[in-house]
Parts: sequence; C-alpha cells; structure tokens
Amino acid sequence: MANSATINPKERVHTAIKDIKAAAPHTAIAGVSGYAGGELASLLLHHPRFIGAAPTFIGRAGEAEATTWLEDLHPQLATAGNRRTHQILPFNWEQIVDLKIEVLFLATPHEQSREWVPKAIEHGIKVIDLSGAWRLQHDANRAVYRLKDTNPAHAAALQAEAIYGCPELHRDRIRQARLVANPGCYATSNILALAPLLQAGLVDVEHGIVCDSKSGVSGAGKAATAITHFMHAADNLSAYAVFGHRHTGEFLEQLHLEAGQIQFTPHLLPIPRGILSTIYLRFKHSTDAAAVSTIFGDFYQDSPMVRLHPTPHLPEIQHAVRTSYCDLGFALAPDGKRLLVVSVLDNLLKGAAGQAVQNLNLMCGWNEEEGLL
Amino acid sequence: MANSATINPKERVHTAIKDIKAAAPHTAIAGVSGYAGGELASLLLHHPRFIGAAPTFIGRAGEAEATTWLEDLHPQLATAGNRRTHQILPFNWEQIVDLKIEVLFLATPHEQSREWVPKAIEHGIKVIDLSGAWRLQHDANRAVYRLKDTNPAHAAALQAEAIYGCPELHRDRIRQARLVANPGCYATSNILALAPLLQAGLVDVEHGIVCDSKSGVSGAGKAATAITHFMHAADNLSAYAVFGHRHTGEFLEQLHLEAGQIQFTPHLLPIPRGILSTIYLRFKHSTDAAAVSTIFGDFYQDSPMVRLHPTPHLPEIQHAVRTSYCDLGFALAPDGKRLLVVSVLDNLLKGAAGQAVQNLNLMCGWNEEEGLL
Amino acid sequence: MANSATINPKERVHTAIKDIKAAAPHTAIAGVSGYAGGELASLLLHHPRFIGAAPTFIGRAGEAEATTWLEDLHPQLATAGNRRTHQILPFNWEQIVDLKIEVLFLATPHEQSREWVPKAIEHGIKVIDLSGAWRLQHDANRAVYRLKDTNPAHAAALQAEAIYGCPELHRDRIRQARLVANPGCYATSNILALAPLLQAGLVDVEHGIVCDSKSGVSGAGKAATAITHFMHAADNLSAYAVFGHRHTGEFLEQLHLEAGQIQFTPHLLPIPRGILSTIYLRFKHSTDAAAVSTIFGDFYQDSPMVRLHPTPHLPEIQHAVRTSYCDLGFALAPDGKRLLVVSVLDNLLKGAAGQAVQNLNLMCGWNEEEGLL
Amino acid sequence: MANSATINPKERVHTAIKDIKAAAPHTAIAGVSGYAGGELASLLLHHPRFIGAAPTFIGRAGEAEATTWLEDLHPQLATAGNRRTHQILPFNWEQIVDLKIEVLFLATPHEQSREWVPKAIEHGIKVIDLSGAWRLQHDANRAVYRLKDTNPAHAAALQAEAIYGCPELHRDRIRQARLVANPGCYATSNILALAPLLQAGLVDVEHGIVCDSKSGVSGAGKAATAITHFMHAADNLSAYAVFGHRHTGEFLEQLHLEAGQIQFTPHLLPIPRGILSTIYLRFKHSTDAAAVSTIFGDFYQDSPMVRLHPTPHLPEIQHAVRTSYCDLGFALAPDGKRLLVVSVLDNLLKGAAGQAVQNLNLMCGWNEEEGLL
Repeated sequence: MANSATINPKERVHTAIKDIKAAAPHTAIAGVSGYAGGELASLLLHHPRFIGAAPTFIGRAGEAEATTWLEDLHPQLATAGNRRTHQILPFNWEQIVDLKIEVLFLATPHEQSREWVPKAIEHGIKVIDLSGAWRLQHDANRAVYRLKDTNPAHAAALQAEAIYGCPELHRDRIRQARLVANPGCYATSNILALAPLLQAGLVDVEHGIVCDSKSGVSGAGKAATAITHFMHAADNLSAYAVFGHRHTGEFLEQLHLEAGQIQFTPHLLPIPRGILSTIYLRFKHSTDAAAVSTIFGDFYQDSPMVRLHPTPHLPEIQHAVRTSYCDLGFALAPDGKRLLVVSVLDNLLKGAAGQAVQNLNLMCGWNEEEGLL
Repeated sequence: MANSATINPKERVHTAIKDIKAAAPHTAIAGVSGYAGGELASLLLHHPRFIGAAPTFIGRAGEAEATTWLEDLHPQLATAGNRRTHQILPFNWEQIVDLKIEVLFLATPHEQSREWVPKAIEHGIKVIDLSGAWRLQHDANRAVYRLKDTNPAHAAALQAEAIYGCPELHRDRIRQARLVANPGCYATSNILALAPLLQAGLVDVEHGIVCDSKSGVSGAGKAATAITHFMHAADNLSAYAVFGHRHTGEFLEQLHLEAGQIQFTPHLLPIPRGILSTIYLRFKHSTDAAAVSTIFGDFYQDSPMVRLHPTPHLPEIQHAVRTSYCDLGFALAPDGKRLLVVSVLDNLLKGAAGQAVQNLNLMCGWNEEEGLL
Repeated sequence: MANSATINPKERVHTAIKDIKAAAPHTAIAGVSGYAGGELASLLLHHPRFIGAAPTFIGRAGEAEATTWLEDLHPQLATAGNRRTHQILPFNWEQIVDLKIEVLFLATPHEQSREWVPKAIEHGIKVIDLSGAWRLQHDANRAVYRLKDTNPAHAAALQAEAIYGCPELHRDRIRQARLVANPGCYATSNILALAPLLQAGLVDVEHGIVCDSKSGVSGAGKAATAITHFMHAADNLSAYAVFGHRHTGEFLEQLHLEAGQIQFTPHLLPIPRGILSTIYLRFKHSTDAAAVSTIFGDFYQDSPMVRLHPTPHLPEIQHAVRTSYCDLGFALAPDGKRLLVVSVLDNLLKGAAGQAVQNLNLMCGWNEEEGLL
Repeated sequence: MANSATINPKERVHTAIKDIKAAAPHTAIAGVSGYAGGELASLLLHHPRFIGAAPTFIGRAGEAEATTWLEDLHPQLATAGNRRTHQILPFNWEQIVDLKIEVLFLATPHEQSREWVPKAIEHGIKVIDLSGAWRLQHDANRAVYRLKDTNPAHAAALQAEAIYGCPELHRDRIRQARLVANPGCYATSNILALAPLLQAGLVDVEHGIVCDSKSGVSGAGKAATAITHFMHAADNLSAYAVFGHRHTGEFLEQLHLEAGQIQFTPHLLPIPRGILSTIYLRFKHSTDAAAVSTIFGDFYQDSPMVRLHPTPHLPEIQHAVRTSYCDLGFALAPDGKRLLVVSVLDNLLKGAAGQAVQNLNLMCGWNEEEGLL
C-alpha cells in the first residue's frame, strides 16, 4: 500500500487517460466499489473491444477521498506481478468532463443517478444507468424513489427520452439511445418470462398473475446490515416487501398491466447470487405445450442472451449463475389452462452488469452478445 | 466397536425390555436410521414421560443385520463415558411381538408401512406411521404410491379407520385412534395455513389457490443421489414435481378441494432443514386484516404448536427450525381481496417427528405439547 | 406491540420478581440480545431448576431504553398464544440491586464486565462473566483488552480471586467461587485437547504446538460488518489474527506454556456455529495409541461434558453443534511421536453459554450436566 | 432429447472432425462428464486458440453408450438457440485413433489413465493426465494407487519420462514433454507455498512442516456418497485421511523431503470449490519479512499464474475461486523463526483443469496464461 502514496495524483489521471484507446468509446464506471460495479469492471476488462482500453473506474460518494485500487476492492481481478493496475478515482463530476468520457455507466444510488444524468447528457455523454432512477415513466410509479430534480422540466424531458434497457423488448430503440435505464433484476426475471405470453394475447390478465421470486443475498447490496449478516441470511428464507416492492412499477409499465393484475413477492435466498422466479398464470382458453413453445421460440429467436428449456425441463439457479443469460422453462397443467413458468438469471449479470454491457454493445453497433459468452 | 461383539444378543433384548418403565407405553421406532427416525429418537430420549423408559430402536429393511448402536448413526446423541447406550435391533417383525410393544412408530418406506400396519393392529399395537401409506382415503389419490395389500379387504377397513394425524384438525379422533397416519411435511405446512380460512368460507376456491413451497434438503431423504449431492444442492434452487407431487392428495382431502382448485409447487432449498410456503389466494369479498387475524386466532386458540405472527410480520425459516411449531403470518392486499399467507415449519419436526410425538401425547392422554417445547 | 405500552413499568418488575422461585437463585442475564446471551436465555428457560423461575433478562448498554421482549429478539423462543412472556429490562445497575439478584451472568463487552463485576461482588452477587475481562491473571496477557479500573487495588484483588471457569480443570474451585471468568471459545477447544497430554508430561513443548482452529461466523459477534456480511463469509475461508489472537493468553496461563511454545491460528468458516481445532504436537518419546487413550480416559472420566472418540475416529463439527459437549479424537503417526488431536465444540454452548450453565450448576451444588443434555 | 436419435452416429463423428481447425492441435478430453473434465471443456471452448476448433469430448467408461450432449451434462455451457452443439462420444480407444487426436487430456480414474497413456504415446499422441497415475516416480509412493501395467517395462520407461505438470517448477521440461502428469490439487497448493523457501535453504526441515489444508466438496468428486450428501457436507467440517492422503507422495518427491518431515491433514469444507492451506514451518535462523518477500518474489517473477500478497495480508478462498491463480501470503512470528504461509487456489482450476491448460499452452509454445485470465 506504501507505493500508492508515491504516485503523484496528476500522474494517475494521466495514466488513466493514456489507457483509453480508439477501438472502444472512452468509458467510465461510477460506483465501481459495489457488487454490480465490480461485475461491470470485470466484464469490460475482459471484453474484446476493451483490450488495451480499460474503462476509467470511479468510486462512490462518501468513500474515502484517497485514491484506491480496483484490485484492493476486488482481489480476484488482480494479475500476477504488480497487483495494482487499475486505480479508482474519487467520485467527482469535474473529472468525468476532464477525462472526455463518451459513455458513462452509473452503478450508483438512485439519488446520485438522478443528479448526474442531466449533467452527462448536457456534455454529450451517453449514460447507462443501473439504478432505478430513470426506469419508470409514470410519476406515480416513480414516487417510491422520492427523487428530487434540480430542473424538473429538464428531468421530465430526459425521462421521456430514457429507454428501458431490456434488449429483448427494445433492441432498436436502445441502439439510438442517449440514456438507457438498465432494468431491475427481479423485473428482468419476470418480464422476460411474461412478455411473449402477454404479447400473444393468451393470458387471462383479469385472473391475475403470481410472481414468486427468490434472490441471492448480493441483491440486498453491499451495506452490512442485520439483514445481510451471515447469521440472518444463512440457513434461512424470508419473504419481504410484500405487496410493495419497488420493481413492481417496471412490471406494470413494461407488461402493460394494471396494479392488482400481478402480484410479486420477493424472498431472500441463502446463496450469494442468482434469482429464480416461479410464475403462475391462467390462459383464456385451453392450449397445448407445443403452442407455448412456439410463442417463446418465436419471440426469442434473435435473442442471444435468452435460453429456452424444452418443456417440461425447468432451469435451476446453478445453470445461469455467473452467466449473462436468462433461462426460461415452463410446464402446462393437464387442463391446458394453468401455466407455470420458471425464469432464472444471475442478478448481478443479466439482472445488472451483463445486461448493461448488452446495452452498450447495442449502442456501439456491436454484436449484442460480445464479451458476454 | 469390539465390545458390542461380547454382548450376548439375548441379553441385549433383555436389557431393552428392562428399560421400558410403567409411565410410558412400551414404544418402538422402526426406521431409526433415517432423518425422521433419528429426530424421533432424540425427541423421545428427552421426553419427560420416557425418562428411564427409552424406546426400542429398530433399523430399516436391508440394512446390515449386525446390531449397531444409535450413537454410531447419530453421534450427536451420544453421552460421555461409554458412548454406546442404545442398540438398534434388526428390522424384524417377530421382535416387535416378542418385545410386547404397545405403540409402534414407523419411519419406514411406505411399502413397509403398508405391510406392517395390519400385523401390528392385529396384535393390539397402536401405530403412528410417518410414511404416506395410510394418509389418503381416496383410492385415486393413493394410487401414486402403488401400494399392494396382502389382504385388500382388511387393508380397506384399516384405511377407513386411519386418522390423519394433524392434531389441529382431528385432535379428538386422534385421542381414540389405533392407527394414525402422520401427515406429509409440505401438506402440514399448507393445510395449517389454509384450513382456518377455508372453514370460515372466505376463500374464492374457484379462483384457485397457489402454494409455492420451498424445502431444505433433508426432505429429499438420506439416500445419496445426484439431487442430494452437495454440488447440486448448494448455491442452487430448483422447482420439481410440478403439477404432480404426492402430497397434493392430502391437500385435497383435508381441505375438501378439487384438483385444479389448488396448485402446489415444491422447490429444493440449499439448507439442511425447514419449509417455507408462500400461499396466494383470493377472498370472495373484500375484508380487513383484523377479521383475518380473528379467524386464525380463534381456530388455533387451543393449539399449543401453532404460533401466529401479528400482521404484517411474516415468519422466516430460522424462527421455526429445530422447533416443533408451525409459524403462520399473513399480509392482505390494499384491495382487501388478495391474501398472502406465509407458513414455516421444520420438515423433520412439525413436518414429521415432532408431529408424531404430538400425536403420541394425544393418544396417551398427556398434554399435546409434552416433550416438544 | 401496542400492549407492551399499557403495562406499568413497576408492575413489570414486580412480575419479574414473582417469577423467581426458591429452587433456583435469583438469576439475571445482562446482554441477552447477543448470541451468547440468547443461548443462555434459552438454556435457563429449559433448565429443570428454573421451571417457573425464569431469570431476569437485561439488554445491553446503548440499546433503546424502551422495554423490549425476549421473543421479539429471539423469535424461536416464543410460545403459542400470547407470544410475549419475557421482557428485557434496560441495562441499568440500580435495577440489579433492586431485584435482589443472587447470580448475575454478564454476556456483555469486556469493558462493561470490568466495570460491573466489582459492584456486583460488593453487593454479594455472584458473577459468571462471559467476556474476556477477568480470565487472565498476568497483566501482560490482559493488556490486549485495554481495561481501565476505577479502583485498581480492588480490581487486582478480585482478579486474583477470579476462577477460570473451565470445570474440567477447576471444578472444585468453581464450586466455591464468587467470580467465574467463563473461558473463550477457542481457548476451551484447544485447552481441553491439550491439558491431559501436558499434565501427563508426554509433550515435547520445546518443539512447539500448532493449534489450527476454524470457527463459525457467530463467533464474530452480532455486529453487522464487512466481515460478517453474507457475501464475504459465505463460500469462503480466511485466516485472521495470526500470531496475535486475544485468546492466546488463556492457552498460556491454563496450560503453563510460554509464548513461542504454542502457535494458534483462527479461521472464519462459512457456517453459523461450531469450532473444529486441528492440533499438532510431538511426544518426547515414542508411545502407542492405547496409552494416549488411557490418558484422555482417565483425565475425563468424571467429566460429563467431554466425549472421547475411539482412535482413529475423529469428531466432526456436526456431532457437537447444538450440544454443550466438547468432542475429542486423536490419531498417532506410525512413528509414535507425532500426534494429531481434533477438538470440536459449539462456540455458543461449550464455548460460551453451555459452559456458563455448567459453572452455575457447580456453584449451586447441582449436577454439572443439569439442563445441558 | 428426441432429436439426438435422428442423427446418424457416423455423421456425428464426421461433424466432430470438421470442427477441428488448424490453429490448435486436434485435442480431445476424455472424462468430460466429471467436474474437472467439465471445467476443462469450458476453458478450451473459451480459449482464443480454440475458437472454431472445439475439442472432441469423450465420456467415461461405464457411462451409457448412447451419445449425449455436453450441454445436457453442463447446462451452463449451452448457448441460445439450438442448445445442443457439442456431442459427447462414447469412451472408446479406437475412436481416439480414428479422430487423429494430437493432444489428449485424460480426466479419467487413475486405472484408466494408466491403461490409455501407453497406447496414446505409441500413436504419437501427447497426453496431459489429470489423474494420479503418472505423478509419482518412486514405486513406494505410487503403491497407494494399486496400478497394474500390461507391459511393466514399457510403463516404467514412460513413468521415467513423465513430467510432473507444475509449470512453476518444471516449465522448460513441460515444453518438451510427451506425457505430463497434472499435479493433485492439494499438492499444488502446498508445493507452490513451500518450494521457494526450501530452495532457498531457509527451512529447518528436521523440525517438520505442518500443512493443514481445507478443500471444497468438488474435490471429493461427482459420485453421490454419504460424504458428499448435502446433509453431511453442509454446516460441517471434518478432517480425513490423516497421516495417509494419496497426495503426500507428491509433496515428498517435488519438495525433496522425507516422510516424517512433512505432515499433511486435509479437511472437507462446506463450500463447492476452493482450497486454503495453512502451512507452519520453522526457519533455521531468524530472518525478516522483507527477505521472505524477496524469496517469493524472485521465485515467481516469471510466473503469471501465481499472485503474491504483501505481508501481512493473507489470501482468502474467495480471491482465487473461479480463477486459475494460486494466491500466496505469509506472516512471520516476532521471533523471526516461525513462519505461517497461506496458499489459496481453486481445486478445479489451478488444482486441475486450469493447470492442465497452462501445461497445454507450454507444450504448444503459446503464452503460459493464454485462455486463463
């Protein structure tokens, strides 16, 4: 740790700028100390377009001002020899401008994202925001985040322009977007399971849909709390935020449902990562499994990050963890009317950093799956 | 291990008989090598009525004939000094008769239970059977077990007489029973959550009820399989037996529902023990939380093994694991019509051995909760 | 929660006093909100001498002053019906006096224990202290706790009088003690493994002894930190406090060793509870396994809470977890000189609360194992 | 699964041959259904030299003869669309020859490896064997595997030629090797920690070295046994194979030690993967930490797969899991004589498949770390 003190801060910035090459846009990740930020750093450091063009890494507000190193926070990213290659710059808006960043990932709390996004767009910087700040178009749905805008009119205009970063639903609009609101992990899991069936008009939405989701502890964030203490989380399972989880608004807006038509219950699983959602719905008319398979197959035929299991095989959390895939499977009741869908993904990858890279790929005109397989 | 060879087999039986005192009936546990059998042994060894009157322990069919010791199979039950106090007798019907057993617990596979119960009843031995062999009255529901009866007429008569061993539903009949069919773990979890509401006539059963249950790995039994391998079970979650789990018949018969009115999905949790069921239903008419609390409170006011959480507090698996309680909590949607119930228990205790002791207590005229707190 | 507000605080105290019966001394547990305090509460509530004589429960300094309930902090201790039976009184010295407590358990931080013990002894209250404050006789060893005494002379006198609460070593002195310093969990694990061999004079202490211990996360306490976060503790193993753990002084004083003769390395295991210590030592002369067995057997022949495994069987953490036993086993190298001892216990029971009850039993003239089997 | 039946077996082989391109040698993995074989498949499928040149995948003896698919055994390797891309050929020597394999990985039991290696070498096929069959030069050490050779003279010659596949020790000889015996996971962990110190002549080997290793459950293999059952492995820790683990011979031969100079105790950790070894040794003379750092730094300065932690920082299992690194750290006692080394690696990667690819890279003249970062 002694040697970090011997490097002049200006030299550090200079080194960081030198690292950015032409092939990929100048990219920065703010909030790299969190779980999603760390995964994003790992993905981009191994992304073929970023070889020799490592992104700039920025910490979180409130973290010690002294420059730290990515390898100290995420030791598994170190290489042999001099372990410290990637410095983390302080959380500071001026620096973003000075560094001439072209694409900015925000893995920051939603208040921070709401504040920085207007500044970034003004400077011509494209943003992929991993927080919940820009995902919801309806004020009533967004109210749960209690966001305050310095310039409400500007914020409203940006909000209207923001694209919900689910490539399987909005691929073309993401390609043109300046501001992509990366979806929530629970929302991704359930929306990808339901969108094909709802679009096909098969589902009896008046009957109601049940989404019973179970998530690993990384979904609860890096803060040390009574909830994330090993003694509480291990050997346990608990439901929480019943009838009131913040991701519910994403379900409603993306699936064009009304409150009361979908019921979502998250649970905390005693595992580090992964989400499995068990989804219950009813068809308007009796149908057969082949028809359901066709609906899913057609919907996802050009989607490299969704894997379909042949019925009645259902995906398990282990299949998708540490991948950027969403795995889907289903089983149809003998009456042909009651359907169970199981959706599995890694909450830090397809539920966060992997999907963010998928969006970046689209925005850069690259193949959607680059750096994700 | 050498010293076990020096004891004459007849002496062993003699010693076992001497251990049985007047206060408690002569009791035997067959199948003590499994998880439920081991828990049952532990409960009875610590039960105040069985001090100095340890039950007789019997193995499973197919296990090595050589006598083994309870403390070798379940080392946590050993005491200091001479560790081997309780021998396990071979699985052998003649021995049951010779030992003049009065109450027999069967923690055996269902085929074995189906074979032994008629013999036991003929000899005037009362039985508490932990398998699925005698739980279901309707042949169609019981067909899933593929049971074969030597004397079908006798078996049918016994089946009609068998009491489903859920004390909260059938307390009075259990007190008089000769044959108690101890409920399944998943069935107990969901039936205790639903019975009060269904009895009150509030539930829109035509709409359908969803029971999404998650169980620890001990529920999958002691057999070493690809499913129970640590590498599969750890850091994972998977749904199984969708639309077809064997416990479903118990739901239907005990709750007076028809197939299609209830949908049950079990999942395998990466923890040793515990079940959490998340249950979704709809009321016929809008109601309020106080009314729901009253329904649960009235139904369970004389039930010492059910604990009610005040809404909106929901039980977690840790609360009930290693107890013989079933913990219940609920949350009502703002519309007053959609109800979520969470039910938690230890699958080896309230879901198996603890409930079996509760039934024994009733059959002996003791307090229902003796030896369980 | 509303009903707690309707009880007059004085009535609460009155009720608490009424609960204390003649058979057991008036007992209080201070620090009942922590893991060891909670286990102690559970043990005493189920202890046969305390039936109808529940101890008084006291919180920790700095916790909210409003009275809370034991069942809210430790939900698994609740009973059916009115769940709240045992209140937790605020942390307040005057109350101890007013309640005429006769035996006080301190499950408090060491600074607090150092402050309260002199007060308690002055009032004729016997103390069993679970902290590290009074365990070490040598100032140099105790320096690691940075304790400050209001009355140093008085503290020194009390320190000289304090008995190290390891019943297997100091049974007779504990019976007469006013102040028992309950041993550390790591210390108990290693001292019980080594004391018989050292006393027998077999060990080449100049060669050095290695104690490689691994502990579950409850040993790190209830505070939510980066260390106890599920994401750090799960699927991990780490060594810590190398060459400097605070329990080392206990090893030295109790085993009459010098620094450098024993090397202790603790590790954090990804499990809730349990310690396994792997101990490596060398004999002065070649010996055989039977002789080693005899040494252990003789030393522990009157110790109900130590279980010896016949060599070469070694105990595993599962054998001892949720018991108050220490399990010991050993293997001797073919050369007859190198010995490996494995010692297993539950850090919250034999390593804390269980051992404290064992000490209480001795101080009360009861059987050492009462309430612990 | 139905569609696999519609493909003609010959066509399958043909397709497999077509897949093999010029850039990489024709490579096959036998035993791809096990954990190490699966990791090896994953590494080569993502290795830059194998893009468009997937290896041939071969099952294990005794597995069903019907061709299966890699993606069915290891679902996380599937891609979207047609999930089945890589077939697994039956375990059959003739096929190896027909396919003109140039490099053969054997992730097979040691008996199988001992039988196939002579055949492969005869056909000019280079072999990297992950079993223990060829690691040990001394007959006495190898006796533990009870190997039988059809042609003992030929086997002895091959044995003498076999290179122990630890690149950090034998880099140059591996480059020229026809037969590489990939090291054991425990052996790699401890040898990499000790080799620099022993080579420097600092260690008092007469005093003895203690290697206390802890491994995740994947090290116990894919067979479902009482040991690998979740109920045994979870929430547990156990020592095994005390004074007699098969890897001990590798320690002795590679470190030039005699039996009795090193004591190795493996433990089973309740985690899927990862090994942490805590190593205790004594220096001949007092030294300082800087000198120890220099010894490690010099020894590993050209080793891209070993990461050194600056003292007193010690690596944790999480740092190295799912990487192909070995992480090393140390702490020196105040006396300058007693040293503790902590060595961490992923038993399936640096302890098996990752090291095998490192050896392949050397044998092909590529950079040692290709496909491993």
